Amino acid sequence: MKKLVNDVHSVVRESLEGFALAHADLIEVHFDPDFVTRRTPKAHGKVGIISGGGSGHEPLHAGYVGEGMLDAAVPGAVFTSPTPDPILEATKAADRGAGVVHIVKNYTGDVLNFETAAEMAEMEDIEVTTVLINDDVAVEDSLYTAGRRGVAGTVLVEKIAGASAERGDDLATVTAIATTVNEQMRSMGLALGPCTVPHAGKPSFDLGEDEIELGIGIHGEPGYRRGSMESADALVEELYTKVRDDLALTAGERVITLVNGMGGTPSVELYICHRRLAQLLEADGVDIARSMVGNYVTSLEMPGVSITLLRVDDDMLELFDAPACTPAWK
Amino acid sequence: MKKLVNDVHSVVRESLEGFALAHADLIEVHFDPDFVTRRTPKAHGKVGIISGGGSGHEPLHAGYVGEGMLDAAVPGAVFTSPTPDPILEATKAADRGAGVVHIVKNYTGDVLNFETAAEMAEMEDIEVTTVLINDDVAVEDSLYTAGRRGVAGTVLVEKIAGASAERGDDLATVTAIATTVNEQMRSMGLALGPCTVPHAGKPSFDLGEDEIELGIGIHGEPGYRRGSMESADALVEELYTKVRDDLALTAGERVITLVNGMGGTPSVELYICHRRLAQLLEADGVDIARSMVGNYVTSLEMPGVSITLLRVDDDMLELFDAPACTPAWK
Repeated sequence: MKKLVNDVHSVVRESLEGFALAHADLIEVHFDPDFVTRRTPKAHGKVGIISGGGSGHEPLHAGYVGEGMLDAAVPGAVFTSPTPDPILEATKAADRGAGVVHIVKNYTGDVLNFETAAEMAEMEDIEVTTVLINDDVAVEDSLYTAGRRGVAGTVLVEKIAGASAERGDDLATVTAIATTVNEQMRSMGLALGPCTVPHAGKPSFDLGEDEIELGIGIHGEPGYRRGSMESADALVEELYTKVRDDLALTAGERVITLVNGMGGTPSVELYICHRRLAQLLEADGVDIARSMVGNYVTSLEMPGVSITLLRVDDDMLELFDAPACTPAWK
Repeated sequence: MKKLVNDVHSVVRESLEGFALAHADLIEVHFDPDFVTRRTPKAHGKVGIISGGGSGHEPLHAGYVGEGMLDAAVPGAVFTSPTPDPILEATKAADRGAGVVHIVKNYTGDVLNFETAAEMAEMEDIEVTTVLINDDVAVEDSLYTAGRRGVAGTVLVEKIAGASAERGDDLATVTAIATTVNEQMRSMGLALGPCTVPHAGKPSFDLGEDEIELGIGIHGEPGYRRGSMESADALVEELYTKVRDDLALTAGERVITLVNGMGGTPSVELYICHRRLAQLLEADGVDIARSMVGNYVTSLEMPGVSITLLRVDDDMLELFDAPACTPAWK
């Protein structure tokens, strides 16, 4: 394993130290327990929003802490849920007297630990709501998940719900908007190869010379099939069709598209994928309201791509377009 | 080779089509010859700025076309210089009657083709100045270069000179500022592994299990030594020391730092590198005025990192901080 690390057990710690040094104008990193807050807290009376989960998916979540998005993020070890204690501390830090929304990707560890933290926060008189993200249409249950997994669409929830909280919506409204975004979006990804978790020291799975994994999870969990390498156009069409059908998308509707790189995919390839996605949507009479192409929710250096479609209305678009200022979204 | 492409000969074309679709609000892509311009041209009387070079380094250059940075970019085939014809067309498109600056990374092909295009533009009464970028301290001559290569620092020239042109500086001033930025910055990189040019179909070089290449070029050109894998801290110190010494950086000075991912390096690793860089600068009494960490100038999916230091004064910082709105810099 060749990685730019020092001690495999201090990867997240040292990375957070570097993150703190690089973005001191926007965020603050707290240690023991580890969590990240925005530099300038929201005004009193505004709803707080936090998220978190295993590290290795950067810029998710800490890269989206800042004005207009998250108030705090809680990074666990690589691909490992954070414990309740830092989640509680982040919740307290994000609380401005109007309640706090937990945005939680649907993995068993995250769900349990955020739930415990929410109960502890309620005992300290902080009202907490939880929105579970489960946008991945690939499989119904998975290695670390009961039900569908939460994947790249999480960033859309963080952006749109973040803007809702920033403009002063109350807890019920912000929660409802986050829930709606989750309900109106679907994602699916594929990997051309694995990634290597530093403390594991070896690739998370094996693929043959010409083999790919369709429906891959963001921790390398199995998808719904393995197959031979095909053209970008054919692969995008397979992802798109499953996402579109599950979302029951029809002509005349509008979507935000996200072509998400998993970490090791060159930009030229992501744009080739976007090209095909745009062609397919046009053929189906669906309007692309906004497009995103890039590394938003990664799996370390995994080569692969996911496609997310979010059905939008005017209010959602206004929130999507609202200003944000975070290390990774400006 | 597993890549998300269709035909290896249409990679750049299809990628540009996707780029055009994704960022139609900010840029326009022209085909035959291929170049990219900003959607809303600068006001008449303002200096134009263009750059270009082989594709595969995205977001450089097309991702930096837009308000506050480039007026146009000219993408060649992957790792291959664009021909004079599209450079001429881009120059004409960028001309607002006040002259055009060519920002050219120092590779023989780029230098020759930009020079030819500049001569053709002069015949059409467009005044052109050229600023050669040669920030790489690794080697004096290289596979495609006489003298030092131009690498990741190019993005700093594009940002700062772009802001100078945007505020209305004249051709001599913008050229002088771009030249100063180039003179005041140094870079060096290392690779943990190769990348694969699609039409080549195989990795650009081989490295052993535990071997790395120090001083790598952005097309995989040889560096100044191969060695065994070491800790991130040790490697960053080696890069930093060479860059610092060549720049003759001394205590009390201020720099902008750029820890640049080459495409296949996870974000956690880049921040571990930034942490060490910041420690080393602090120990040397050098102040970090601004920090950048991320994939700014890539080499397809190459795993590796480069470090750039730019010695700054107040005017340069003001230009660095000025607003920009491009697909990859907002």
